[in-house]
Amino acid sequence: MERKKIAIVGVGLIGGSLAIQLHEKKLSSRLIGVEVNEEHAKKAMELELVDEIMSLEDAVGAAEVIVLAIPVDKVLSLLPAIMDKIDQQVVIDLGSTKRQSIELVKNHTKRGRYVATHPMWGTEYSGPQAAVRGAFENKAVIICNAEESDADALDWVKGMYKKIGMHLLEMEAKAHDLHAAYVSHISHITSFALANTVLEKEKEEDAIFELASAGFESTVRLAKSNPAMWVPIFMQNKENVLDVLKEHIAQLQRFKESIEKNDDTYLMKLIDDANKIRRILK
Amino acid sequence: MERKKIAIVGVGLIGGSLAIQLHEKKLSSRLIGVEVNEEHAKKAMELELVDEIMSLEDAVGAAEVIVLAIPVDKVLSLLPAIMDKIDQQVVIDLGSTKRQSIELVKNHTKRGRYVATHPMWGTEYSGPQAAVRGAFENKAVIICNAEESDADALDWVKGMYKKIGMHLLEMEAKAHDLHAAYVSHISHITSFALANTVLEKEKEEDAIFELASAGFESTVRLAKSNPAMWVPIFMQNKENVLDVLKEHIAQLQRFKESIEKNDDTYLMKLIDDANKIRRILK
Repeated sequence: MERKKIAIVGVGLIGGSLAIQLHEKKLSSRLIGVEVNEEHAKKAMELELVDEIMSLEDAVGAAEVIVLAIPVDKVLSLLPAIMDKIDQQVVIDLGSTKRQSIELVKNHTKRGRYVATHPMWGTEYSGPQAAVRGAFENKAVIICNAEESDADALDWVKGMYKKIGMHLLEMEAKAHDLHAAYVSHISHITSFALANTVLEKEKEEDAIFELASAGFESTVRLAKSNPAMWVPIFMQNKENVLDVLKEHIAQLQRFKESIEKNDDTYLMKLIDDANKIRRILK
Repeated sequence: MERKKIAIVGVGLIGGSLAIQLHEKKLSSRLIGVEVNEEHAKKAMELELVDEIMSLEDAVGAAEVIVLAIPVDKVLSLLPAIMDKIDQQVVIDLGSTKRQSIELVKNHTKRGRYVATHPMWGTEYSGPQAAVRGAFENKAVIICNAEESDADALDWVKGMYKKIGMHLLEMEAKAHDLHAAYVSHISHITSFALANTVLEKEKEEDAIFELASAGFESTVRLAKSNPAMWVPIFMQNKENVLDVLKEHIAQLQRFKESIEKNDDTYLMKLIDDANKIRRILK
């Protein structure tokens, strides 16, 4: 693949990790960072994640590919203006919700230059210092409403994701947002709520610290995730998230009732049912 | 430490992993397995987890130390009978709840020979084939109501746990069961309920399989855990578990309400609060 000048808007966990991969896989001839947080911008340069920092306007003018690695509310506020300014550049976003951003620019004259994607990778940390080598490898990336993108833009984006080791899936935005609620968004809400439960009930933090098992760490680690990223995701995917969250609360009520009523048989059945997740997660 | 003849009652994930450590750290002169599940007994011998399989009665007669690595309901049903039969042997149990077993034998003439412990280690798998090398290392073990055990029995058990790499904590059984509800039991309920939520709502299992991120796997992996182990834990720790579970449902309701009402500020606050878990889990 031909190397391109690539602007990464938002050089945090996701943008920074992608920058490392783009550089290592020789996909970029130059990496331009756009970063409103001055400390993050400085850190991104120190860590050599990008070659230079530019304003958004300059970056859009200078780059051939513009990658939006910013919270999904910021995608909505920046995407139309960026598309007003581009000529033949490719614009990619990496957000966890896809319906609203795609809807927003549906009738834009440059719609074809935009490729809406969701690489299924992240950690609970944030900022450029959280960027890691080898991110995205062997994970799935979803490309939404691919038929609305120009063939050349789509080809380049697919090639990029393949080269950094991801496997491609195509999906309509509506289906994407529904599945994302199940396999990602609800896990974060559960984990945030579990952290709040334990912090509320367990006043002896030393006890948590001493006793916390691997199981606890595993269920609660996502609770460290950045609110600036997650609040807009939950709000943009409101209907699906609420639907899954209501079901989750109902499932927890069943556990509560079975224990309250000393109903071993029902509790056993609930856990047996849960064990079926083994079919899916090895 | 002097090597002892040790009987392990229940050669599954926990008992099998302990057997490996006892052998490797030269704590056992002979390892006797007691296992009612014939397949497990056969497998435990094949894997050389124990030197021989005996009936419980023979094992109690032959061993100097008897380790109960069985579900907590089985601890309640076997412990008094075992204590009726012992002379100067040491009896240890490894269960996740401690109040009821300690209460049950409080006035037994051999109470001093019993040491009630809870090593904070496990995985979501079960059976002898799930036993792993190096288990328990760098984890906490809680010894409950230590003052009710004879000094020599307590010393041997403490020495054993230190030698397999655990750090010791002492706690009253009531406090243990409370903390265990927060840092272990609730995580399992959350995870079971999350698995049921996703299995109920997401009929396209292929989509889960394809899209499941590391975050999803991490919050849902405990849902593979064995119901025979967990049903009795939840029932024996009913009051504490229900208390934490009610709080957890209330916390989830707050997320639900903030999203329903489009209350970004409140949702942001809930997640900011959850982020405080960073103080405890690095």
